[in-house]
Amino acid sequence: MRAALETPGLLSLAAGFTDNATLPVAALGTVFAGLTEGVRRAAASATPRASGMDAEFLQYGTNAGRPGLRALLAARVLEQDGEEATVEAIAARAEQTFVTNGSQQALYLAVQTLCEAGDIVLVDRPSYFVFLELLGGLGVQARSMPVGADGRLDLPALAVLLRQMRANGERARLKAVYFVSWFSNPSGRTLEATEKAGLATTLRAEDCVVPVIEDAAYRELGFARESAKAQRGVLRDPAWAGFARLYTGTLTKPFATGLKVGFGMCDHPGWRAAMQHVKGHHDFGTANFAQALLERAIMGGAYEVQLAVLRETYQKKRDTLHEALACGGLYELGWRWRVPEGGLYLWLAAPEGLDTGWASKFCQLCLAEGVLYVPGELCHGDAAPVNTVRLSYGVLAPAALAEAGARFCRAARRVGEGSGQV
Amino acid sequence: MRAALETPGLLSLAAGFTDNATLPVAALGTVFAGLTEGVRRAAASATPRASGMDAEFLQYGTNAGRPGLRALLAARVLEQDGEEATVEAIAARAEQTFVTNGSQQALYLAVQTLCEAGDIVLVDRPSYFVFLELLGGLGVQARSMPVGADGRLDLPALAVLLRQMRANGERARLKAVYFVSWFSNPSGRTLEATEKAGLATTLRAEDCVVPVIEDAAYRELGFARESAKAQRGVLRDPAWAGFARLYTGTLTKPFATGLKVGFGMCDHPGWRAAMQHVKGHHDFGTANFAQALLERAIMGGAYEVQLAVLRETYQKKRDTLHEALACGGLYELGWRWRVPEGGLYLWLAAPEGLDTGWASKFCQLCLAEGVLYVPGELCHGDAAPVNTVRLSYGVLAPAALAEAGARFCRAARRVGEGSGQV
Repeated sequence: MRAALETPGLLSLAAGFTDNATLPVAALGTVFAGLTEGVRRAAASATPRASGMDAEFLQYGTNAGRPGLRALLAARVLEQDGEEATVEAIAARAEQTFVTNGSQQALYLAVQTLCEAGDIVLVDRPSYFVFLELLGGLGVQARSMPVGADGRLDLPALAVLLRQMRANGERARLKAVYFVSWFSNPSGRTLEATEKAGLATTLRAEDCVVPVIEDAAYRELGFARESAKAQRGVLRDPAWAGFARLYTGTLTKPFATGLKVGFGMCDHPGWRAAMQHVKGHHDFGTANFAQALLERAIMGGAYEVQLAVLRETYQKKRDTLHEALACGGLYELGWRWRVPEGGLYLWLAAPEGLDTGWASKFCQLCLAEGVLYVPGELCHGDAAPVNTVRLSYGVLAPAALAEAGARFCRAARRVGEGSGQV
Repeated sequence: MRAALETPGLLSLAAGFTDNATLPVAALGTVFAGLTEGVRRAAASATPRASGMDAEFLQYGTNAGRPGLRALLAARVLEQDGEEATVEAIAARAEQTFVTNGSQQALYLAVQTLCEAGDIVLVDRPSYFVFLELLGGLGVQARSMPVGADGRLDLPALAVLLRQMRANGERARLKAVYFVSWFSNPSGRTLEATEKAGLATTLRAEDCVVPVIEDAAYRELGFARESAKAQRGVLRDPAWAGFARLYTGTLTKPFATGLKVGFGMCDHPGWRAAMQHVKGHHDFGTANFAQALLERAIMGGAYEVQLAVLRETYQKKRDTLHEALACGGLYELGWRWRVPEGGLYLWLAAPEGLDTGWASKFCQLCLAEGVLYVPGELCHGDAAPVNTVRLSYGVLAPAALAEAGARFCRAARRVGEGSGQV
């Protein structure tokens, strides 16, 4: 049957696709041109043609995603991992790659295929709060990996935790380990190469070789272009050999959020097949049109140009927010934060005991001042501290960022007044 | 807090969005222009500007979808239901509407939020095979509603089935009823208004007021423009009052498949909230850019123009395939089919006992002739007959359709040769 399907002359009355010849290439050209006045005027006098090649962009794609885009992603990640992007290496990696609706869907598929309700996933501390929410939605427990005061993984403490889980029977329900390796949301931290390798070694030593999910959403948003290469992804890291490995990434944050295209790369054929099977039920393929735009943007260089713009913009905005907080006296009030080298977030620790939750006095003071933040308690799988805060410098323009930082500092000063608190 | 959030001057450091000012409007304009040579040349001399309004297209949207698109969809479906699209009616319906990755995702969310593994969903017979697959993927059983020889629902037989389910304890696991109302995939049939109302009456009489999922994917693809109005959707059909109702539709089939945008409309607040909650975990919102394109296409009239093209094209192609089968002698060989008034499919019954499954001699003969079809056995929730076939006239151009039909007829003749079978 496979041979028959590969016959060039085969006529298919099977697929419920639409007719390429009817796809609204010209109409969409005009609609899109409406995005900008210049293009709109220009398009009015243009005469688009609906060749098969063009119309293909508007047709259904495949469940796994466009082969061209998958090959480009494969080459890109291989290069970031310091590997030679040979034809064979690209083909092998592209085969492991599937395109998703943002990297979020890849994370969802990963958990949906690995876990039953009641299972446990090890997560970083702090961790990506939408990932924690999706775990909760599927009835899966998050278990934080211990960290030291410097934010680094505390591997001896992790070994103790894993031994406890073996002793109390929880080990059987431990199904995966998840972490953000580069410029984490929310902490802004990047795992050190030795730290990540040490995690693998500890898991292996404690008989916990479970599937690993590495979230690389911010890998390309390091302010130094080369920071993406500072360490290998798990797929190419020998420390992780023998683990079933999923590496997730996105083209949304580094290019245009409105396109919502991400990807997973998985070296375990059975797990990958399970994720693709469920993806087929979710939507049988991410919008082909958005994939085609991104394919062209990467091939034509627009993607790289855009990344350069983002790196410069976010670095400046990080500086703006950091300086607003520092000059606003936040250090003197006992707050602490690291200055991240990439990503979109400052992660702050308020003085011990200062509650920053949604219902807290501090949060109310911030709203009264006119500034909003994400309470850090949302970013913890368990045993959340009350005194952390995530600030994003992604959205606001520099002047507004500076004002927001000043307001935040005023709230921090006011919360201490009259209560004797710092 | 809501009041504070609605303060115009509030500065948010909360959302992890990117910066509108950095969105690659110009770059994407050029990429998109690459779709057609005419626009490419024009765009080269254009000077796009990145105003906030334009860049908004490329930013994240909301989980529920663009308010403008939801209002347009609300107005459209109200009009098809013969209701006056007042401001109030549109606002109320838009509130019930959420945008999804094709209508497929709305169906998935519906089942994911209603059912546990082992539960039962009533389905039409034949039914949409990807829906049946997603039920299977979630461990949910499909139970076919009985039909007569004419394909109409056999409501007395359904009543008997429902009583049996009450008697054997299955009623407690019955969680929903699903059907395609217009130009069904695969049967091409449209439910009659009295048939659909009778279904509601029977379910109510048998104490089976369970959530109803109405799949309207092909509603707009009737060859007569007015056929979308031939009956009301369940949301406006008084026969279905008291049922929790989900109506799903798509902008993908009637416009451009590559955009993959669909929607659900649900009048049950709790169910709707549950679906949106899970949608937030899947992907927290369908690509805003694709929604924006469709919003403009509907507002500017391109959508309606495209629909007119599709109706005419598919009607002609239905004629081509139908005539190829009729002139190829398929009737004389004992095959039967109805000529559908919309949609993309011919649904054929082969002579009793003729096996059309993937492994059948007939299927092998078709592949040898160079033609592919979907075995009808895939389109049944249970007790599948062996002798049905779905043929799509969606993809192939007219000449290829005629040739495919001729090949199909040759296989039908050959399968009878030497076996004494019809």
